[in-house]
Amino acid sequence: MSVWPTAAAKQRLCPIEASDVEIVGGFWARRQRLNREKTIPHGFAQLQRHGELDNLRLAAGGPGRYQAETDSGGSTFPFLDSDVYKWLEAVGWELARGADPVLAAAAEEAIGVVAAAQRPDGYLNSYVQVVTGGVPYGDLAWGHEFYCVAHLIQAAVAWHRGLGDDRLLTVATRAVAHIDAEFGVRGRPGIDGHPGIEMALVELARVTGEERYLALAERMLGLRGHGLIGPGRFGSEYWQDHEPVREAATVAGHVVRQLYLDCGAVDAAVELGDEELLAAVRRRWSDLARSRTYLTGGMGSRHRDEAFGDPYELPPDRAYTETCAAIASVMLAWRLLLATGEPEYADAIERAMYNGVLSGISLSGEEFFYINPLQRRTHRAAEPVGHGRRAPWYPCACCPPNLMRLLSSWHHYLATGDEGGIQIHQYADADVTVGDVRLAIRTEYPWQGRVTVHVLQTPDRPWTLSLRVPAWSRSAGGPVVQHSRQWNAGDSVVLDLEPVIRVTVPDRRADAIRGCVAVERGPLVYCLEAVDAPASTELEDLAWDGGRQPQEVPRPDLEPAMIGVSVPVVGASPGEDLTAGAIPYFAWANRRVDAMRVWIPAFTSEPEARSNPARSDPG
Amino acid sequence: MSVWPTAAAKQRLCPIEASDVEIVGGFWARRQRLNREKTIPHGFAQLQRHGELDNLRLAAGGPGRYQAETDSGGSTFPFLDSDVYKWLEAVGWELARGADPVLAAAAEEAIGVVAAAQRPDGYLNSYVQVVTGGVPYGDLAWGHEFYCVAHLIQAAVAWHRGLGDDRLLTVATRAVAHIDAEFGVRGRPGIDGHPGIEMALVELARVTGEERYLALAERMLGLRGHGLIGPGRFGSEYWQDHEPVREAATVAGHVVRQLYLDCGAVDAAVELGDEELLAAVRRRWSDLARSRTYLTGGMGSRHRDEAFGDPYELPPDRAYTETCAAIASVMLAWRLLLATGEPEYADAIERAMYNGVLSGISLSGEEFFYINPLQRRTHRAAEPVGHGRRAPWYPCACCPPNLMRLLSSWHHYLATGDEGGIQIHQYADADVTVGDVRLAIRTEYPWQGRVTVHVLQTPDRPWTLSLRVPAWSRSAGGPVVQHSRQWNAGDSVVLDLEPVIRVTVPDRRADAIRGCVAVERGPLVYCLEAVDAPASTELEDLAWDGGRQPQEVPRPDLEPAMIGVSVPVVGASPGEDLTAGAIPYFAWANRRVDAMRVWIPAFTSEPEARSNPARSDPG
Repeated sequence: MSVWPTAAAKQRLCPIEASDVEIVGGFWARRQRLNREKTIPHGFAQLQRHGELDNLRLAAGGPGRYQAETDSGGSTFPFLDSDVYKWLEAVGWELARGADPVLAAAAEEAIGVVAAAQRPDGYLNSYVQVVTGGVPYGDLAWGHEFYCVAHLIQAAVAWHRGLGDDRLLTVATRAVAHIDAEFGVRGRPGIDGHPGIEMALVELARVTGEERYLALAERMLGLRGHGLIGPGRFGSEYWQDHEPVREAATVAGHVVRQLYLDCGAVDAAVELGDEELLAAVRRRWSDLARSRTYLTGGMGSRHRDEAFGDPYELPPDRAYTETCAAIASVMLAWRLLLATGEPEYADAIERAMYNGVLSGISLSGEEFFYINPLQRRTHRAAEPVGHGRRAPWYPCACCPPNLMRLLSSWHHYLATGDEGGIQIHQYADADVTVGDVRLAIRTEYPWQGRVTVHVLQTPDRPWTLSLRVPAWSRSAGGPVVQHSRQWNAGDSVVLDLEPVIRVTVPDRRADAIRGCVAVERGPLVYCLEAVDAPASTELEDLAWDGGRQPQEVPRPDLEPAMIGVSVPVVGASPGEDLTAGAIPYFAWANRRVDAMRVWIPAFTSEPEARSNPARSDPG
Repeated sequence: MSVWPTAAAKQRLCPIEASDVEIVGGFWARRQRLNREKTIPHGFAQLQRHGELDNLRLAAGGPGRYQAETDSGGSTFPFLDSDVYKWLEAVGWELARGADPVLAAAAEEAIGVVAAAQRPDGYLNSYVQVVTGGVPYGDLAWGHEFYCVAHLIQAAVAWHRGLGDDRLLTVATRAVAHIDAEFGVRGRPGIDGHPGIEMALVELARVTGEERYLALAERMLGLRGHGLIGPGRFGSEYWQDHEPVREAATVAGHVVRQLYLDCGAVDAAVELGDEELLAAVRRRWSDLARSRTYLTGGMGSRHRDEAFGDPYELPPDRAYTETCAAIASVMLAWRLLLATGEPEYADAIERAMYNGVLSGISLSGEEFFYINPLQRRTHRAAEPVGHGRRAPWYPCACCPPNLMRLLSSWHHYLATGDEGGIQIHQYADADVTVGDVRLAIRTEYPWQGRVTVHVLQTPDRPWTLSLRVPAWSRSAGGPVVQHSRQWNAGDSVVLDLEPVIRVTVPDRRADAIRGCVAVERGPLVYCLEAVDAPASTELEDLAWDGGRQPQEVPRPDLEPAMIGVSVPVVGASPGEDLTAGAIPYFAWANRRVDAMRVWIPAFTSEPEARSNPARSDPG
């Protein structure tokens, strides 16, 4: 289980053991299988090809030259070790789901390399050891040293919890000891330009029972927001050093940094019973969800500094919406769901997973998007490479192994338990065990809305089955349906969520998409791709024809059981009844490089305010 | 005169001597006076304060430490000499307009410093001489060495043409000789990451009669587009090295770099009679004007790389629209006007000057905008500094002295002559002499639309007076009104342009402003500032009420004779008839830091397409 609070933690819901949940079929089984059979092996090949493993071998004293990936301008990335660790975390969860000798052998090799690279004093960072002369912590702002250790810890936690294998945990605790000696409560103040270690340290405390890791996390959380790092190129908010974590009213700066930090804040808050800290994160989340989250669950409006925009600054074309940001939002929402029990957080997980996260990986499982815009113009389709084509890897390859570890642990997020019963948050064909209750959940979600929960085993006392009713479904009552009774084996409960096609209107403050509508169905956001539009017209010339109804259309060409939508549109010269095929947003860019849009202009006659009809300007 | 083709140049219109045009009153006299009395002295003080002059003194062997301005991340700017040169160019034009002992003394000091800084071998660049060890041309991509010399040449040309003072010309020709020896026709291939020297070299050839400067310009134009510099951080298009100048179909990359390069291409094309090269620039301009130019004449949709966006990617909030880009568009449009005689280029100059250029400077003349967005949300008004407040100077201070030199030479752009007569392109209270014709133009433009041209002196033969009819005025006939006759002293011609309020609808492909309208009147684009909106509502909650008419409102509180517009709006709860005051866009941000918007949502009932009215998402 990715997040496993102690018994003393102050939180509302309890995760259940990863081994007690299994996704057995349907949409998510397909994706977990693809991840295990294609994506993770592909990841290992890429780590070998791009030097991430060889760099650790170099740190261990091997021969060769550091193969630092660089951006096109020649900047060298110092954080590539973290991709090895994220990949190892994914393999840890996978091997816990079931043995696989090839994956296991690859992981053995990687673990050996990691352990060998660690210095006798515990320090471990191939970039510093090989490239910058081996002096640790010389560039906390950009160096990502704590960040890399954070991912090492997360991998170690996965291998410990999932497999009882503590080899990585030994490496991680030694690496943390090195940090703790210099930056612990009796050390100098220091924070990493990229948060991440905070949540990892809390998990390490949970796994080891050692309070000092929690104390170090608390210290690092407290040191933020006092300008310790300096303004840098993008201002203090870029590295979350602009306001104290418990004071900042809104999210700000680099999206992934903010969300990782808030994950750590929640983890610490529940362990410490720090309600003020938890409230600060919830306040930020509330603002974020209301005014800075894309329809796809994506976050991040700006390319320049990978940052949130102003409230309601949500351009579909220049959306940055990094895959890692959507993943981080799932991580944070999960923590908030556990802490509070409020179903809005599970809704957010659903929206992000089915849209902003899954768009980051191709249907083949071997190509990735780093950024996930909601619109690409026809112009871009004429360009040779780089725009709108998924890539097998990236110079900064944070997203691909992040997808791997989330997909390999996705079953962790389906359900929780508490004293009164079991809560189902996400729907998939899954078998779930909580104590002496065994359930079989069966559904064709997200394509169909019926969910059946079969009670296979039950104790001889009443308990409550809670089923989340997604916000998009208004047919089944409130945000949660609860069935409290004395159950018998063989009982079943049916939830009908009725995923009708919805035509979504943007908030009127969202300037960039005014006058548009979007298609949704169930948890899925849809998009138009030019390949599915009338050949006679460019995608930019199509407008939604509100006088006709959209229709469901099976799309087995893209995936079995997939439901597409036929959208009524008019072209540049109104009068002709045209239709364009909408597909789930996550499935875009799997055919050719093409124009795409989520938000579709609504056809209207020209505004009456226009007093000089001959005058029209581009912008 | 800023641009002065040779007699052999292949172009349609001829500039007239700067000394033969004088702006005597009204809107532009006010601005030229402010520039002379406030802005340029302020510029000198800033150059002293921020070290630009002292750095040149250091290069001359003086004591001290290089005062490189840096961005907040610590990057050092190597191009600060150019700000001294741009300032000197402005002073050259000013002193040509009339003596000023204080300005003259400041310029003497600056010229002395520049001349002293030059090395015996002709090389001149304070950053290289002082900071990087004195080895020239080691970083053509980022070093801006040719770029700085380009501005030196432009200053030298101004002092030569305006004052017959060739001290800077001597410095400039020696600096160019140093470049020519290494990069000339028998030298190694080399281009600057920032174009600019191409147009300067053509002007230097014009001033000196030396063909080799034209040949060097031609060589540098020809070397571009073959990947000589490498992709860099932002791709080859960032420094205009992605496609040959005569082949690129559209503008691309960094806006100012593209426009400066195309200025040089036009200059070279007319001198060389290279119609293919001219056609390439016109083709790019045409695409740019149609699909990537803001209503304000601003250009540049992206912060990340200061670049053009995709066609119709014109976000008002994240518009970059650098002041220098608007200035560069005036420079390029002027060259295209001279080359072709086509009035659309004069229209573009007017739109850019009254809106995107003038917004770059405060009404006080001492504060500047580097970027000029078309929207600022209420949220931003709550922030302390930096957003939406003009600054007295910038670490990268390219824009302020660029404004100074354009305003000091603005009278150059009003009129041209050709064999048949005189063409008036821009309207101002001005006295104009062309050969033996003397005209007095009188107008209250842009506030009122009547222009009267008095003929004060005329030869005893027929000639043609051509008056541009701006594209926004449809009341006076075609794009140009021509009066061909035998004139008599005392004749006058009246042009009535009727600047009625226009409600402008965006191009339907401009996604970011769909469903909005903008207010224009005459050449001016208007905007709403929160300070002029009903206090009970935020600017984001206002929508244009098409059922009522906007009204003219005098705004003497901001400037004598200024006309504002009272805009009918509805607030968050429709039904109440509200109004908001719109002011010319150039005048925004002169009171408090406030929310602002050019494009105003048009009030409509919700789109009928909406099938699930409870569902609404931010983006």
